[in-house]
Amino acid sequence: MSLTPSAHFPVTERLRQMRALMQREGIDALLVPSADPHLSEYLPEHWQVRQWLSGFHGSVATLIVTAEFAGLWADSRYWEQAQVELAGSGIELVKLLAGQPGPLDWLGTQVRPGATVAVDGAVMAIAAARQLQEKLQRIGAALRTDTDLFAQVWSDRPALPVQPVYAHLPPYAVRERSEKLKTLREQIQSQGAHWHLLATLDDIAWLFDLRGSDVPYNPVFVAFALIGEHSATLFTALSRIDSTLRDSLAQAGIQVREYGEIASALAAVPAGEKLLFDPARVTVGIIESLGTGVTLVEALNPTTLSKSRKTAKEAQHIRHAMEQDGAALCEFFAWLEGAWGNQRVTELTIDEQLTAARARRPNFVSLSFSTIAAFNANGAMPHYRATETAHAVIEGDGLLLIDSGGQYLGGTTDITRMVPVGTPTADQRADCTRVLKGMIALSRTTFPKGIMSPLLDAIARAPIWADQVDYGHGTGHGVGYFMNVHEGPQVIAYQAPTTPQTAMQPGMITSIEPGTYRPGQWGVRIENLVLTGEAGQSAFGQFLNFETLTLCPIDTRCIDVPQLSAAERQWLNDYHAEVARRVAPLLIGASLQWLHERTQPI
Amino acid sequence: MSLTPSAHFPVTERLRQMRALMQREGIDALLVPSADPHLSEYLPEHWQVRQWLSGFHGSVATLIVTAEFAGLWADSRYWEQAQVELAGSGIELVKLLAGQPGPLDWLGTQVRPGATVAVDGAVMAIAAARQLQEKLQRIGAALRTDTDLFAQVWSDRPALPVQPVYAHLPPYAVRERSEKLKTLREQIQSQGAHWHLLATLDDIAWLFDLRGSDVPYNPVFVAFALIGEHSATLFTALSRIDSTLRDSLAQAGIQVREYGEIASALAAVPAGEKLLFDPARVTVGIIESLGTGVTLVEALNPTTLSKSRKTAKEAQHIRHAMEQDGAALCEFFAWLEGAWGNQRVTELTIDEQLTAARARRPNFVSLSFSTIAAFNANGAMPHYRATETAHAVIEGDGLLLIDSGGQYLGGTTDITRMVPVGTPTADQRADCTRVLKGMIALSRTTFPKGIMSPLLDAIARAPIWADQVDYGHGTGHGVGYFMNVHEGPQVIAYQAPTTPQTAMQPGMITSIEPGTYRPGQWGVRIENLVLTGEAGQSAFGQFLNFETLTLCPIDTRCIDVPQLSAAERQWLNDYHAEVARRVAPLLIGASLQWLHERTQPI
Repeated sequence: MSLTPSAHFPVTERLRQMRALMQREGIDALLVPSADPHLSEYLPEHWQVRQWLSGFHGSVATLIVTAEFAGLWADSRYWEQAQVELAGSGIELVKLLAGQPGPLDWLGTQVRPGATVAVDGAVMAIAAARQLQEKLQRIGAALRTDTDLFAQVWSDRPALPVQPVYAHLPPYAVRERSEKLKTLREQIQSQGAHWHLLATLDDIAWLFDLRGSDVPYNPVFVAFALIGEHSATLFTALSRIDSTLRDSLAQAGIQVREYGEIASALAAVPAGEKLLFDPARVTVGIIESLGTGVTLVEALNPTTLSKSRKTAKEAQHIRHAMEQDGAALCEFFAWLEGAWGNQRVTELTIDEQLTAARARRPNFVSLSFSTIAAFNANGAMPHYRATETAHAVIEGDGLLLIDSGGQYLGGTTDITRMVPVGTPTADQRADCTRVLKGMIALSRTTFPKGIMSPLLDAIARAPIWADQVDYGHGTGHGVGYFMNVHEGPQVIAYQAPTTPQTAMQPGMITSIEPGTYRPGQWGVRIENLVLTGEAGQSAFGQFLNFETLTLCPIDTRCIDVPQLSAAERQWLNDYHAEVARRVAPLLIGASLQWLHERTQPI
Repeated sequence: MSLTPSAHFPVTERLRQMRALMQREGIDALLVPSADPHLSEYLPEHWQVRQWLSGFHGSVATLIVTAEFAGLWADSRYWEQAQVELAGSGIELVKLLAGQPGPLDWLGTQVRPGATVAVDGAVMAIAAARQLQEKLQRIGAALRTDTDLFAQVWSDRPALPVQPVYAHLPPYAVRERSEKLKTLREQIQSQGAHWHLLATLDDIAWLFDLRGSDVPYNPVFVAFALIGEHSATLFTALSRIDSTLRDSLAQAGIQVREYGEIASALAAVPAGEKLLFDPARVTVGIIESLGTGVTLVEALNPTTLSKSRKTAKEAQHIRHAMEQDGAALCEFFAWLEGAWGNQRVTELTIDEQLTAARARRPNFVSLSFSTIAAFNANGAMPHYRATETAHAVIEGDGLLLIDSGGQYLGGTTDITRMVPVGTPTADQRADCTRVLKGMIALSRTTFPKGIMSPLLDAIARAPIWADQVDYGHGTGHGVGYFMNVHEGPQVIAYQAPTTPQTAMQPGMITSIEPGTYRPGQWGVRIENLVLTGEAGQSAFGQFLNFETLTLCPIDTRCIDVPQLSAAERQWLNDYHAEVARRVAPLLIGASLQWLHERTQPI
């Protein structure tokens, strides 16, 4: 399955074939987003068409091909990698900047009147297609969404994934399928609809208490779901659901049909009835199957909010998973300090050892994302990943950034810690101290219930802005429950729109991860996950606050302790006391000793 | 001019006449907003139709009248007053809550299909009219905007204002009219337009360096302006512009025509040309005059951003005005402390004495808004105003809130201070301390250039939220330069949408005024004005910060000094040293002594 272009069939040849096909089809410009019919963050190989055609392996980018031009739009995380991988392909790297025109704007200004622009409607969200349609209409160009040109040119295209689907079982699955379906049906009804189409894999896995492994890191499986007033149907490869599971789904009133049958099921929705769906999370290709006379009701998937609000029992499982995850990290850090000077340690060794430490813990399923172990200058790339051919040896002085996480049956973890190597410089310590202040500031915050989460971002940034420092990524993303490590609807990022669905609600799990990146020098990020809880009710309304879930020492050897305020020092000492109390029972020997040393009060 | 209903012609009689007229005109529902053709904050009496028909004197409310129903929508600031003033009128108070349906929603759900809803298009913004039109269309009702029913029923309606218009002269006017017109024409052109219609009085006064006194507090005058590529016309009563001023306007290429001639001027805009205007700041009635075939270009008035960014010379005049304003406040506070125990002091006396102290200062023109002097429970109403018939005597123990401001030729001031009366309680001091922490936190903040101002609000609120306290108003509003005390486009309020025009820019003047309100007990607010300045350029971009402009001691007898952090104490000591340094030269005797005592380091 040649995703990587070979000398025999390089990108230039692929582009030549694609352009020839475009000409035969009367297509002037081809838009190739990084997307699948479920608009997932991680794509099964079957839908890695942008990667196949461009030779660029970064996870997010958009390709446009015309007869004379080929351009790849990517944000700053990917510029270095893209420049290397696109060399010699004839594809131009177009640097995507926030607030600047993107690929859809390019199409809306650069194609000639009368031109035909094609995109595979099966992988383009309705909301995005509408935007593009509008831009093209203005200049008299046409949009075609009915064809997947890759089906004709990608001869050895990988098949759809068929890994087994399994049940997420009690005690870790704490909400009954039938109960979740009942709530969802009430939500559908309250929107005035009879049917609900779900295309997002995390919503489907959550709703049916099922898990899979079709993509790395996210325990989901490729499927659609159609919920009616008296029916609930899951569309996925039948071969991968065993008879026991099928029976237990049937008991909850859930029918299973083949993946491809979603089209005929949608076509069979009776005229005059109303279908609820999220135009940002359903593609043009799917909705086109819908029978005529069905009224569309557009809203956020109700399950997105439901699953973001973890129950008290789920929170309890997550606390236990965090204790195990913290213990794994302590074992790893104890190993690391013992290994230095005695053996060669690289960024790859770190990934291996840390993954092994997690894998030894009960209920561990997989990593929740690809480990980032980044020494000095590599840490300045927020999405850096060491490879066999390019990775650093950890030696000399500096900072090692480790961002990692695990999937456990009882929760999903995501943590970043800074490790001092040799003697970090004063500037490096200053960056770590400032970032820690930002993390503590937001961790300690109390705020009114229902406030839009992007509005909280300034609280984490204020101590960092104070020294005219900032970072380009958001401060916090939502996290699932044995589910995706990036799940909304909340997001602590001042760049995000303050839409009503971003309101911070009790039970949500969010990361707090401020950072500082100095290209070519080093990068700093410190990250904990927090659970939103009820702080109390006052004369001024209901207030919420954060419980820190992540349990792992923050290495104070990177911190200028005198720069911390009394309140910050108190927070750190309290945190370390809690870490020691809860993680120590899971450790012995050198790991326990390491935990003890690294949680001493300052 | 009977704005206040009399026994001879009460509100019930006015409503009866209006309903009879509605029946004759075939109007089923009449919408009466608090608005004029310029969508101003303060309305000339001619346009106080809502007040005339309802008998409610609060500044913002919306009245709806049908054959069977009359309701007045008002927000929480006005509920107490409305309940008193509407008693016996047959008009129901409808409590308006943020995020809840408002009067337009009521019309969009309560009128019957086929009904006709009328509103005077001359006083309704295009954007609002579009919203209403859409709501009515959905239920099959019609909107009529072509009639002002009050012209037929309000027999002694006040005439349009004709107070003199005068030039804002150098050195206080620092930007030449011709230069501002040149910049504006470039901005019009860059939007692809040929013409620009201005209806907002502050934009017009700023553009032409003119001032007036048609409404209290805002030094503006009723006018329209139409700017073309080779013409600039001001529409206002000719009688109030003397020949010298007319000549000097003519020299800058500005023609003056009668107020009512705006309609014929708009009708004469040639077909095929494009007119720029702001649909939120221009009414339906005005735009209807436009000739056919003119294309509308909708955008924020370019002058709104230009005038919000004060020049270095304007900033220098404002600093001097602040010194004078601070000196006036010191004189007043010195008088107040001397008066207590020796004479009866009421909230009204305070208003008189403070106004007199300001009026003695050079370049003083008027107050910038109605003084709020509010003792204890009165302070819990953020928009309280003492009257002859209802005001408190300042005696016993508690907190006195004084929110006041002046218009000077060289700037506009707005300041709130808390005054301890007798011995404030521990709870009162705790509220003052928390609010001060919030004000200091935001005053000290550095932030990236161009950040949307609503996103900064959480920085002021975090220390207040920490104790589960909050306040319903925004933290900061923009302030003009010898102009309106409320001027955008920036606004530090988490409730405000983060639109691009709210970006914080160098030269903007904004209030920082957190508060705490305990109904029936007391209210706290502390307010300074700050100037946005360049903090510097770092590897992470350009950063801005705030220079505190307001110069007046913050009474530390209301503050729990041990609750302040070292950094907060330092900020306060630095601030008081600056106040003493700059205000002392303008004071003598007891006032100077008072300043000296109140600016001692803590």
